[in-house]
Amino acid sequence: MRTIKSRSHDYTVEEHESPAAALADVTKDASPHFLFDRAVYDLLAPSVRASLPADRLVLMDASESAKSYGRLEPVFLDLLGRGLRRSGLLVVVGGGVLQDAGCFIASVLARGLRWELLPTTLLAQADSCIGSKSSINIGPYKNQIGTFYPPHRVLLVPAFLETLSFDEVRSGLGEVIKLQLLAGEQGFTELMADLDGLASLGMAERLTLLARWVQRSMDVKQPVIEMDEFDRGPRLLLNYGHTFGHAFESVTDFGIPHGIAVVLGMLAASSISARLGMVDGDHSAVLANRLRPWHEPYSRQLSDIEMADLLAALARDKKNTTAGLTCILTQGFGRMERITLSPKQVDSCVVPALIELIRREFRV
Amino acid sequence: MRTIKSRSHDYTVEEHESPAAALADVTKDASPHFLFDRAVYDLLAPSVRASLPADRLVLMDASESAKSYGRLEPVFLDLLGRGLRRSGLLVVVGGGVLQDAGCFIASVLARGLRWELLPTTLLAQADSCIGSKSSINIGPYKNQIGTFYPPHRVLLVPAFLETLSFDEVRSGLGEVIKLQLLAGEQGFTELMADLDGLASLGMAERLTLLARWVQRSMDVKQPVIEMDEFDRGPRLLLNYGHTFGHAFESVTDFGIPHGIAVVLGMLAASSISARLGMVDGDHSAVLANRLRPWHEPYSRQLSDIEMADLLAALARDKKNTTAGLTCILTQGFGRMERITLSPKQVDSCVVPALIELIRREFRV
Repeated sequence: MRTIKSRSHDYTVEEHESPAAALADVTKDASPHFLFDRAVYDLLAPSVRASLPADRLVLMDASESAKSYGRLEPVFLDLLGRGLRRSGLLVVVGGGVLQDAGCFIASVLARGLRWELLPTTLLAQADSCIGSKSSINIGPYKNQIGTFYPPHRVLLVPAFLETLSFDEVRSGLGEVIKLQLLAGEQGFTELMADLDGLASLGMAERLTLLARWVQRSMDVKQPVIEMDEFDRGPRLLLNYGHTFGHAFESVTDFGIPHGIAVVLGMLAASSISARLGMVDGDHSAVLANRLRPWHEPYSRQLSDIEMADLLAALARDKKNTTAGLTCILTQGFGRMERITLSPKQVDSCVVPALIELIRREFRV
Repeated sequence: MRTIKSRSHDYTVEEHESPAAALADVTKDASPHFLFDRAVYDLLAPSVRASLPADRLVLMDASESAKSYGRLEPVFLDLLGRGLRRSGLLVVVGGGVLQDAGCFIASVLARGLRWELLPTTLLAQADSCIGSKSSINIGPYKNQIGTFYPPHRVLLVPAFLETLSFDEVRSGLGEVIKLQLLAGEQGFTELMADLDGLASLGMAERLTLLARWVQRSMDVKQPVIEMDEFDRGPRLLLNYGHTFGHAFESVTDFGIPHGIAVVLGMLAASSISARLGMVDGDHSAVLANRLRPWHEPYSRQLSDIEMADLLAALARDKKNTTAGLTCILTQGFGRMERITLSPKQVDSCVVPALIELIRREFRV
């Protein structure tokens, strides 16, 4: 069990053997309300479903559009109508969308009530379940509403990962890879060796391996979020790969999973870093070779993208102003830096690096 | 200048001479966005209005229904459309509704941005502007959404009180009286003496007197909210008069100003306390005599209320369960206590006390 410090309240992360065991644990001393990803709920064993209180259960579709300010109003009303009040407990079961929705609801209902989280995707387990953030869309503005309000307890159930699609596993691995790149060369090398063997493992061994990397991901993220919960300094480095990753997501209309976009974004960032002379060209070549198998099934979607569209997407990013392009670059394993590039540097380094990346990686 | 401690961030309360001076101060080192009560904006001098940036200005009607989750969505979108982002500053000008709306918006936009508050009513200046809370309605649920997120600075301008209606002054005085009752006999006696002379004062002296009681109100409230910002213990005593006050508001369909309802609620609480033997009957008689001039213009609206309606309103209160009625009672000046009364005590003490109060005070 791990305890994470937060300005609102410290919280624990603990592992449970099965969905049934975790759900039994949250109802042991409380009568919680439940907010479930509908798809996750449908996959539960009938006996587990039957153990949940139908009158305190709300199901939600886990689409990106469902986590908007307006579409959350009926969810609030449903929970209030079922009697959730200040002294209550909200248990949220699902991946990133459910986590965002549940965190936002728990943080503003009755000015903040207890909530516990059962993350069900690899991305949520390894990365987003700790760190307190919620991100909610409003009108055309993506992720502009939110709060910092961690769950009071995170219950990890590796068995939830059994049901993930290929896309979901890949997406989660993208953030797992990013965290090890931030940690340093050794973690990255060990992770890559483990991942090379992943496909040949049986389900039980695979879950054990993923559960281990979930913990190792948290080992990297925990000190950073404890030091800078509100994202003003060191925590911003966790966005490595995200500036360019978001642009890749945007130009493909979210056709590639988030974590894969982050992998591609890290390749872009390391190439740009090399052109700027921040890191040896070997570093970005090593990364490109090691990461190719993980993004290859998706990156072809980017083979025909226009540079103008990519630059327009970067310009739309909320962090970028006319004064420059702010992104995380690298001086090598474990050595990331937040830098604002001038328009001149964008022309002389960013554009050629992206052109070369597209030519080399996306047109295979 | 006063500095108030809060879990999110400490903040200052400072007095400014005029709306123009305060608005000049907030724009001195920043380019804030403004959220104004439309009625307050309309009363500003034309030169002051002209000094505000039209492209960063949003006006809002200060009705109770305007501070609902759904009706705030266009306000969020308006502010985002005008470019308010994480690094921005939101300046909120108005009374309680604007404060609730502004606090909620500032606390969840970009996961919390800087905001400053110019409270314009007596109630907002003396009471609600410190304490961090926002209360937002959702569907049929009143004040069930909210956050704890104080402004980064409160700018008090006594001159705003010049424009208040009779109702608004009375409503503010209700909470001012409550805070002095919580403080002890001396504060209450001094306040009553000052208020007796209020009507005979000219405008300038009246503002000076009110500004002094704004500060004295904060002297009482500040240590309580610093000790218990999240309303789990001592701060609950600030709800003295509110359980019964809410019921009076509810049965008159909000026909009496909030602060007056609180005054009537305190009369009810002190009568009930006397019947329970918690306090001498003299205490509640003294209160009734001293407070009569302040509620008389309104309390007649309550002359025909049915006890059944009042009890139903009490039962709807979110704090009350079938197990009992939770309210703040008193053992005398400065000695309040949070108590849950059994259904038997409701029958034997609450009902007769309310019947007697209605007969004695409301049918004059």
